[in-house]
Amino acid sequence: MTGVLRPGYCQLRVLDLNESIRFYTDVMGLIETGRDASGRVYFKTADERDHHSVIIREADQAGMDFYAFKVLDKRTLDKLEVDLNEYGVATERMPADGLLETGERVRFVAPTKHVFELYWEMTEVGDGQGYINPGVRVDGPGGICPIRLDHWQIHGADLDGSRDLFINVLGFHLVERITGEDGATDMAVWLTCSTKAHDIAFVRDERDNTLHHASYLLESWEKVLHAADVMSAKGVSLDIGPLRHGITRGCTIYAFDPSGNRFETFSGGYAFYPDMKPYTWTHEEIGAAIFYHTRELNERFLTVVT
Amino acid sequence: MTGVLRPGYCQLRVLDLNESIRFYTDVMGLIETGRDASGRVYFKTADERDHHSVIIREADQAGMDFYAFKVLDKRTLDKLEVDLNEYGVATERMPADGLLETGERVRFVAPTKHVFELYWEMTEVGDGQGYINPGVRVDGPGGICPIRLDHWQIHGADLDGSRDLFINVLGFHLVERITGEDGATDMAVWLTCSTKAHDIAFVRDERDNTLHHASYLLESWEKVLHAADVMSAKGVSLDIGPLRHGITRGCTIYAFDPSGNRFETFSGGYAFYPDMKPYTWTHEEIGAAIFYHTRELNERFLTVVT
Amino acid sequence: MTGVLRPGYCQLRVLDLNESIRFYTDVMGLIETGRDASGRVYFKTADERDHHSVIIREADQAGMDFYAFKVLDKRTLDKLEVDLNEYGVATERMPADGLLETGERVRFVAPTKHVFELYWEMTEVGDGQGYINPGVRVDGPGGICPIRLDHWQIHGADLDGSRDLFINVLGFHLVERITGEDGATDMAVWLTCSTKAHDIAFVRDERDNTLHHASYLLESWEKVLHAADVMSAKGVSLDIGPLRHGITRGCTIYAFDPSGNRFETFSGGYAFYPDMKPYTWTHEEIGAAIFYHTRELNERFLTVVT
Amino acid sequence: MTGVLRPGYCQLRVLDLNESIRFYTDVMGLIETGRDASGRVYFKTADERDHHSVIIREADQAGMDFYAFKVLDKRTLDKLEVDLNEYGVATERMPADGLLETGERVRFVAPTKHVFELYWEMTEVGDGQGYINPGVRVDGPGGICPIRLDHWQIHGADLDGSRDLFINVLGFHLVERITGEDGATDMAVWLTCSTKAHDIAFVRDERDNTLHHASYLLESWEKVLHAADVMSAKGVSLDIGPLRHGITRGCTIYAFDPSGNRFETFSGGYAFYPDMKPYTWTHEEIGAAIFYHTRELNERFLTVVT
Repeated sequence: MTGVLRPGYCQLRVLDLNESIRFYTDVMGLIETGRDASGRVYFKTADERDHHSVIIREADQAGMDFYAFKVLDKRTLDKLEVDLNEYGVATERMPADGLLETGERVRFVAPTKHVFELYWEMTEVGDGQGYINPGVRVDGPGGICPIRLDHWQIHGADLDGSRDLFINVLGFHLVERITGEDGATDMAVWLTCSTKAHDIAFVRDERDNTLHHASYLLESWEKVLHAADVMSAKGVSLDIGPLRHGITRGCTIYAFDPSGNRFETFSGGYAFYPDMKPYTWTHEEIGAAIFYHTRELNERFLTVVT
Repeated sequence: MTGVLRPGYCQLRVLDLNESIRFYTDVMGLIETGRDASGRVYFKTADERDHHSVIIREADQAGMDFYAFKVLDKRTLDKLEVDLNEYGVATERMPADGLLETGERVRFVAPTKHVFELYWEMTEVGDGQGYINPGVRVDGPGGICPIRLDHWQIHGADLDGSRDLFINVLGFHLVERITGEDGATDMAVWLTCSTKAHDIAFVRDERDNTLHHASYLLESWEKVLHAADVMSAKGVSLDIGPLRHGITRGCTIYAFDPSGNRFETFSGGYAFYPDMKPYTWTHEEIGAAIFYHTRELNERFLTVVT
Repeated sequence: MTGVLRPGYCQLRVLDLNESIRFYTDVMGLIETGRDASGRVYFKTADERDHHSVIIREADQAGMDFYAFKVLDKRTLDKLEVDLNEYGVATERMPADGLLETGERVRFVAPTKHVFELYWEMTEVGDGQGYINPGVRVDGPGGICPIRLDHWQIHGADLDGSRDLFINVLGFHLVERITGEDGATDMAVWLTCSTKAHDIAFVRDERDNTLHHASYLLESWEKVLHAADVMSAKGVSLDIGPLRHGITRGCTIYAFDPSGNRFETFSGGYAFYPDMKPYTWTHEEIGAAIFYHTRELNERFLTVVT
Repeated sequence: MTGVLRPGYCQLRVLDLNESIRFYTDVMGLIETGRDASGRVYFKTADERDHHSVIIREADQAGMDFYAFKVLDKRTLDKLEVDLNEYGVATERMPADGLLETGERVRFVAPTKHVFELYWEMTEVGDGQGYINPGVRVDGPGGICPIRLDHWQIHGADLDGSRDLFINVLGFHLVERITGEDGATDMAVWLTCSTKAHDIAFVRDERDNTLHHASYLLESWEKVLHAADVMSAKGVSLDIGPLRHGITRGCTIYAFDPSGNRFETFSGGYAFYPDMKPYTWTHEEIGAAIFYHTRELNERFLTVVT
C-alpha cells in the first residue's frame, strides 16, 4: 500500500498507424482522445475517466515503448523516486508536456529492461456520466468495448530483479507464481498493487523488454463471448480462447492487433488481500495454470512476443 | 411436421461399465433410472421427464449401438413404418419389453449404416416438479447437469442417402450444409424435425456407422463455462472449446467420455422455421463454420470418431 | 402441427407517431422498414428476416388493431380458412396490397373479440447475414435490440371460446393454465403452435379485445438486465421486473411504450413438446405463477390493459 | 490505505437458532465451522479462507451485535487503537479467547451506536483448494452459495459522526452519497477501505444501532437469478429484486432471514480508486439511486430495520 494505484497507460508501437487507429476504435471499441505533434494517437475506454490509457505510435517494429502506473499524488511520486534511487535504480524526470494532458513522470528501466513510468496527474475527461446522479452506460461505441486497460504480461531474463523491485520498492504483492523444474525458481510471477489478482506479470524469458500481452477488462463471461464474436466478424487473428486460466481464475481470449501485438480481453478473477498466501503452480501443472480447461499449453502462446 | 418429435434416447458402448456409470453421474450429472437384466444402465437428465435418454452397455469397442427418435403417437409410428417400407427401407418391430419402460420400437438402418429406432411410448418418471404449481429446480445433482440429450452428429459414406431419407420420409428439414470443393456436394448436413437448429447432423466419411458426438443442451453460456470447469476439475479429456460454432451459432465444448466417445455440452443456437432457407457454408469457410472464433479446424475434431 | 408457424406481426395504435417511432427505434432497437400511404410505420428486429413484425399507426386510443400468425404456405392458409368457416367463424380475405410487402391475409374475430390474421407471404428482407457463410451480428442498432417479436398476452371475456378455437381449429396446444377458485375454470391459458412455451396467452377479463402485452425475445438474462438499464437510461416507464415467471420459467421485464401499451422483454423458458401435459397453477399459487420470486401479484400488472 | 482490509465477520441475533442454522446452511449455502460454549454458531462461505464471517446467536430480538473489520497485522491494530483513542473514541481490548479461532480484538462504539471490532488474527481453515495448483470449485454446498460476506448497511442518527470517524481515523474513502433536500446534508454514505465500491454504508435514521442489511457477494448476474430462484423455492421472504442499484451499479436482491434480518445477495459494481471523486445523488433522484430500473422507492425497503 505504497500509493501505486493501477496500470495507467502504455505506449504501443504499431506498423501502420491508420490501420491501427481503425483497429483500436472499430474493433477494440476505444475512444480516440487526441493526437500529438509527433503523430501519436491517444485512446481511452468508454468507462475510463482519465484522458488516455493507450497511446500508439507508428514504428518499424511492434512492441511496447513503456508502461505507466498511476500513483496517488505528488508526494507519492516524489517518495517513490527517492525509494527507487535508494534501491539503486536510476530515474529520469519526464516533463509535463511530454504527453498530452499528463503531468510529470518518473521513468526507470526495470531489470527485465522494460521502461516504466510513474505519474500522478492526468486530465480527467470523464466517462460521460458525471458525478451527479450518474446513469449506467447502455450504448457503447461498438466493438469489444472493454471497461479498462487492466494489466500487462511482459518478458525478460532477470525476472527475479523486476519482481523484487516491484515488491520491495513499489509495494506490490506476489499473488501467483509458476515454479521451474527445480521447484524453487520463479518462471513467472503475477503481482498486484491493489486487490486485483494481478496488475502486472513477469515471465522469465531471454528476450528482454518484450511484451506478451496488454490486457483489457470486460464485464462478464458473456462479454468475453461477444469479444470473440467481434474478433471473428472483424477478421482479428485470434490466438486462443475463450477459456479460463487456472492462474487468477480469469476467463479470457488472446488475440493479435494488426501489428502482431498480443492483447487479452478477459473478465473475472478473485480478489486479492494481503492476508492471502501466494498460489504456487508447479512445473507439471503449468498447462492447467495457463489454460485451465484443456490443461495443455499452446506453442504460439509461449513463443510469440513483441 | 410428420410427428417425429425429437432425439429420445441412444445406446452407447463403453469400455468399463463402472467407470462410465461414475462418469455419467458424477461428471455429466445424469440420474440413473434403472439397470436391466443384460447389464445395461439407463440415465436421464434431471429435467427430462421420460424414463431415459442415455443407455450404456459394456463392450470391447466404443461407439453407439442405436439412435432413437420419439414420435407423437402410435398412429405416427405405424404410418412412418409404412412410409419407410414404401421408400424401400426395411424395418424391424422391436417388442415392448426390449428396453426398460419403453414401448414398441420400429428399427431401421440408414444408408450411412447407423441403426435408428422410432418409438412413441416411454414411462414418464417426471422431473421432480410435477404438473401442478411446479417450481424451478435450484439444486442439481452436481456435475455438468444438462437440460436434455439434444442431438447427435454421425458419420458415414452415403450422406446423401441418409439426408434424403430423413427429409423425404421422416419430414426433417435441411437447416445448414457444408459443401465440398465442387460447390455442390454436401460434405455435412444439419437437419431438424422441430424448431431446433438441429436434431441430427450427418457428415460424409468413409467410416460408416460412426459417432462424432452426442450432444447435451445447457441453459446458458455461463453453464458452458461451468461444464468446462467441471471437466477440468474431474479430469475429463477435453477436445476443444469453449467456443461458438458458425453453424447453428451454438456455444459449446467438446470432450471425451472415459471410453473415448466424444460428447458436446452446448447452449444457444437460433430457432428454425420452415420459411427459412438452408444456410450454406462453402469449402473455404469450413473453419468459421465449425469454430467460428478461430476460423481454423483442429485435426482431432475432424478425425476421431467411435 | 397444422402449419401455423408463429406470431408474425401486429398493428399497434400509438398516440403520437413521431414519439413512437423514436421509441421503437432508439429504445426498442427495431429497424424501420417502411411507411405506407396511410401513414403507418413498419418495423422489424435486426435478426428477423421478414419485412416487418410491428406496425404502428397513430390513433386516439392505444391498443392493438390486429394480431397476425404466419402459416406455412398457401395450401395451409386456404385449408385453415375452410376450417375456420366450418367451425363457424366468419373470415375475410384481405387483399395482398393492404399491407406493405405482405400477401393475402385471412382475417377473423376470435370470441374474445380480438382481430386475427393469417398470412403466408411476406417479402424477406433478410437479417444482413445472408444464407452463404453467415456471420454472427456483433453490433446491434442500439437500444434493447430483441431477437424477435415472440408472443402476445390478450384479454377478453370468452377465454374458453378463443382457447378452443386456437386448439381445435388452429392446432395450438395448451401448455399452462391458471385455474380459478373453483379449481376448474381457466382464468388464463398459455398456448403454443410450436415448441415455444407460448405463442399466445389469453386471460379471462370482461374488457374484450384488450392487450396486456406484446412480447419480445432477448438472448439471455444478461440481455434482460441490459434492457432494464436501457429503460432506465431512456426514461421508459417500467411496470415490473427483472424477474422470473413461474409460468414458462421465462425471465422478464414489463414496461410501457409512450402510449401506455405494455410490452415485455424476456429470455428463457422451456421447450414444449406435445407429449407433455399442461401445467396447472391453482388459484392460491397465482402469485408464484406470475412473479416467481416474490410470489406476490402487483395490482398494476393485473389491471392495466390497452 | 491505513491497513483496514475488509469486513471480516459480524454477529447476528436470531430468534430460533435451529431454524437459522438451517437457513444459513441450506438456503444461504454457508458452511458451519464451529459452535462455542455460549451456543453461538459460526459460518463461512465456501470460498472464504478464514474460520468464520457470520456468527449467529439466539436472542429475543433480531439485529446485529457487532461488526468486525480485519486489519493487516498487529502493528496496524495497535496503531488504529491509538488513533481511535486520540480521536476521542474509547476502545476495549477483547481477549483472544472470546471468539473461536480469533485473536485479540479492539472494540469501539461508533457515533451511530453500532459496535465495531478490529482484529488481525483468525485461523485460516482454507477454501478447500490449497495454495499449490489450486482448482476451481465446481460443486458448491447448494443454496445461494455466495463468494463472501461483502459489506453492511447500517442506520443511526449521527451519520456525520460515523462517516467522519471511518474516513478520518480508519482511512475509508467516501464513494457515494445521497444528499437531503438542502442539497448538502448527507442522508446516506457509501464508504470503502479498498477498491470495492463499498465496504460499509451509513444511513441517517433516528433508530440508532440498527441493521438495514448484511450483504453477500455473488459471481454474476446469473447467480443473482439463481439466488432469487433459491429464495422462492425455499420459501424465503423476498423484499425486492432482482434489480440494479444506481449507487455502485451492483445488481441485487434483498430478502429476509427467518428472524427478519434483511440480507442482500448481489454481484457487480465498479472498482473505486482514490483519484475518483464521490458520486452524489440528489434528493429528487433517490429513486434511481436505490432502484435504478424502476426509479421508485419501496416503503418496506426504507422502513424495516433490525
